[in-house]
Amino acid sequence: MAEHNVTLEITLKLLLDEKKYSTLKDILVTMNPANIAGVFEEIEPEKTPLLFRLLPKELAAETFVEMQPELQEHLIKGFSDSELREVVQELYIDDAADLVEEMPANVVKRILAQADPQMRKEINEILRYPENSAGSIMTTEYVSLRPQMTVDEAIKRIRRTGIDKETIYTCYVTEGRKLLGFVTVKDLLLTNEDESLIEDIMDKNVICVNTMEDQESVAHKLSKYNFLALPVVDNDNRMVGIITFDDAMDVLEDEVTEDIELMAGMMPSEKTYLRSNVFDVFKQRIPWLMLLMVSATFTGMIITGFEDALAATVVLTAFIPMLMDTGGNSGSQASVTIIRAISLGELEFSDLPKVIWKEIRTAALCGSALSLACFAKLMLVDRIIFHNSSVTLSVAAVVCATMVLTVVVAKIIGCSLPMVAKRIGFDPAVMASPFITTIVDAVSLLVYFLIAQAILI
Amino acid sequence: MAEHNVTLEITLKLLLDEKKYSTLKDILVTMNPANIAGVFEEIEPEKTPLLFRLLPKELAAETFVEMQPELQEHLIKGFSDSELREVVQELYIDDAADLVEEMPANVVKRILAQADPQMRKEINEILRYPENSAGSIMTTEYVSLRPQMTVDEAIKRIRRTGIDKETIYTCYVTEGRKLLGFVTVKDLLLTNEDESLIEDIMDKNVICVNTMEDQESVAHKLSKYNFLALPVVDNDNRMVGIITFDDAMDVLEDEVTEDIELMAGMMPSEKTYLRSNVFDVFKQRIPWLMLLMVSATFTGMIITGFEDALAATVVLTAFIPMLMDTGGNSGSQASVTIIRAISLGELEFSDLPKVIWKEIRTAALCGSALSLACFAKLMLVDRIIFHNSSVTLSVAAVVCATMVLTVVVAKIIGCSLPMVAKRIGFDPAVMASPFITTIVDAVSLLVYFLIAQAILI
Repeated sequence: MAEHNVTLEITLKLLLDEKKYSTLKDILVTMNPANIAGVFEEIEPEKTPLLFRLLPKELAAETFVEMQPELQEHLIKGFSDSELREVVQELYIDDAADLVEEMPANVVKRILAQADPQMRKEINEILRYPENSAGSIMTTEYVSLRPQMTVDEAIKRIRRTGIDKETIYTCYVTEGRKLLGFVTVKDLLLTNEDESLIEDIMDKNVICVNTMEDQESVAHKLSKYNFLALPVVDNDNRMVGIITFDDAMDVLEDEVTEDIELMAGMMPSEKTYLRSNVFDVFKQRIPWLMLLMVSATFTGMIITGFEDALAATVVLTAFIPMLMDTGGNSGSQASVTIIRAISLGELEFSDLPKVIWKEIRTAALCGSALSLACFAKLMLVDRIIFHNSSVTLSVAAVVCATMVLTVVVAKIIGCSLPMVAKRIGFDPAVMASPFITTIVDAVSLLVYFLIAQAILI
Repeated sequence: MAEHNVTLEITLKLLLDEKKYSTLKDILVTMNPANIAGVFEEIEPEKTPLLFRLLPKELAAETFVEMQPELQEHLIKGFSDSELREVVQELYIDDAADLVEEMPANVVKRILAQADPQMRKEINEILRYPENSAGSIMTTEYVSLRPQMTVDEAIKRIRRTGIDKETIYTCYVTEGRKLLGFVTVKDLLLTNEDESLIEDIMDKNVICVNTMEDQESVAHKLSKYNFLALPVVDNDNRMVGIITFDDAMDVLEDEVTEDIELMAGMMPSEKTYLRSNVFDVFKQRIPWLMLLMVSATFTGMIITGFEDALAATVVLTAFIPMLMDTGGNSGSQASVTIIRAISLGELEFSDLPKVIWKEIRTAALCGSALSLACFAKLMLVDRIIFHNSSVTLSVAAVVCATMVLTVVVAKIIGCSLPMVAKRIGFDPAVMASPFITTIVDAVSLLVYFLIAQAILI
């Protein structure tokens, strides 16, 4: 597939160099908008306006939506007002709103000037909603039906008004903008009674979302119920728009990327990896690295504090990496599991005691297994095979006891922090591996030296 | 929303205790299958068959599909053959295949006995495909049209045969099972020429997937092109089924959970957190903990190897946690970024040099910023404020030089290993934080002591 695209790209580039525009057009119209946009990203920017003008109006708009913001901006700057108008008029409202959000102010001004007043009003309505809310990703173009219509009238209405709607397959039954129910085109087509009233065949059990609901929760809801689209209502329960499955899928992918970035101690970025320059990547990564470096110096202070204990038994130093890593890994296993369960809507704050109890028992099992293995290794490998006399039974006892305690503490911290973060309104993903590793490091060293002092000194 | 559900659950439980079956039925039929399944999971298992029998046939099957496997098994064991038959006959083929895959052998035997021969054949066909392949998640029920049909005939065919199809909105045009193109119901409804031939209005640029293609790649493709469904073809290019957006969304969620689990050093699990018992969680977590603990002992051996250097300048020990953590964090930032980019299809193995070059420059920036901050802290805080005379200029130089080198090495290892893993056929997510932390720990300590030996001793 990838190779096939590459060959096609080369062909298209050659045709463009040779100015074979009619052949180019013949090829482009057979292609999918997402793939055409891919070709645009690869050719020299100064040739893109030329190529774009070859596309028929509708395909041009569909391709435009699939492009990266930089290229969109470049193209708009080359458009005449009437060219811009043609593209803008073809856009769905939600795509137009996305575009307005991403372009610099002077470009936005030109875009809004080319939209008709109704469209401008609807774009502005969507832009009023806070980022990441249902309102900000909805489209205001949906098919609405009246309860007293017959099936036949409803189908006629869809055929008449459907062309500009993002989806016609789920139609919403409203009266004075109040949402009463929905019918699918499948219901309409498969019913054998064309004279039935919509209110008699509609599904009155509507799952809807509020304009202010978080986009991730909307996407999970859509996925849970397997709906093509979810209606969005305002606080007075009036229908204002819909969110379609394709936008929900994009939200899921973006939110997951954001969660994963946060979990690995990075600031979320809007740009993909290859499109970010080195300085973008640096800005994304340095804040957490800096913060975590500073916190790790406290761990260093613990070591300094117990310098006497260390000087007495230097062998203890050799086990620091193992204890720190095992603690860190145990903690991140717990935190990542909990963060994912929260984001899938499986866990609420009220589950905290249940979660802690499960983690304690798991930690007891893991800790015991690890410390048994560790004890066997110390006794058999270090003492018997390598004759390392400094690994005494007491040292082994200190290491193994620390291991169990560290795992238990790590799992408790790992599972609680994300739930607490969620409770007080932070993104739980922030409380992931790097952060928890730092805390667990300090705790495990403290436990280690305290036990060492008690047993060895 | 959640609270609302809880109240409803209590009401339903009370009604069930009081044997108010007709009221219960009235309530259940207004509800969504996913929500009814949620109620079933909460009530005592012995009462579920009773409640299930209240549901009308179609709703019963839809609810059954949404249940967890344990409950499905429990219900099937209580079904008479004719009850089981009613449910099985109502299932879509892909759901029936999922069910057969998840039930124990004796239950499978009963299920297949109740499916009619055609269904049994189709279930078996789906089960032939390897796990996680497109073939294994497709459904064989789709609307197919002939190229010579008129729009009017096509709509009639959809109305006649659509009832059993998972989606009617995208129809596939085939001839002798060869896939020629597709038309959407939107195209059919919005065209004004009922006598047009399907072959004239169909879209011939079909994006399709092979039966053996990985399910994750299929899901990303569907999301990229915003399709409701993708057709699945065999090696001879004959159409064998479709994959719908709702199944693709489930795949995306599952694959992401699996990636996240692998990244945190856990074996992927099919069960959700709350449904796993402590021993499940233990089995999921202990293998990596054990492996990583063993590898961390090598890091310990490095410390032991440099015991003399350490004994000479004990102050070096205090910086071990900071250097190890910063290295680990830098490495996991790089690895997690790359793993995500690979899974989104942004990076190929051939991008490796480009990626390494970008990571080296980023690491140089991050490393310099971190070591400047660290140097300032050592000189100002440790020396001037705390008068810690053991933090000499040479010690600071050793720590800061190690910092830069560690970050660079960590970023290079972090970005290369996932790409190499992918290349040799492993899941890149395995090469994430815990694994890379362990390698980077060892490398950073080695660098640390070598530099220390060169400068200090």
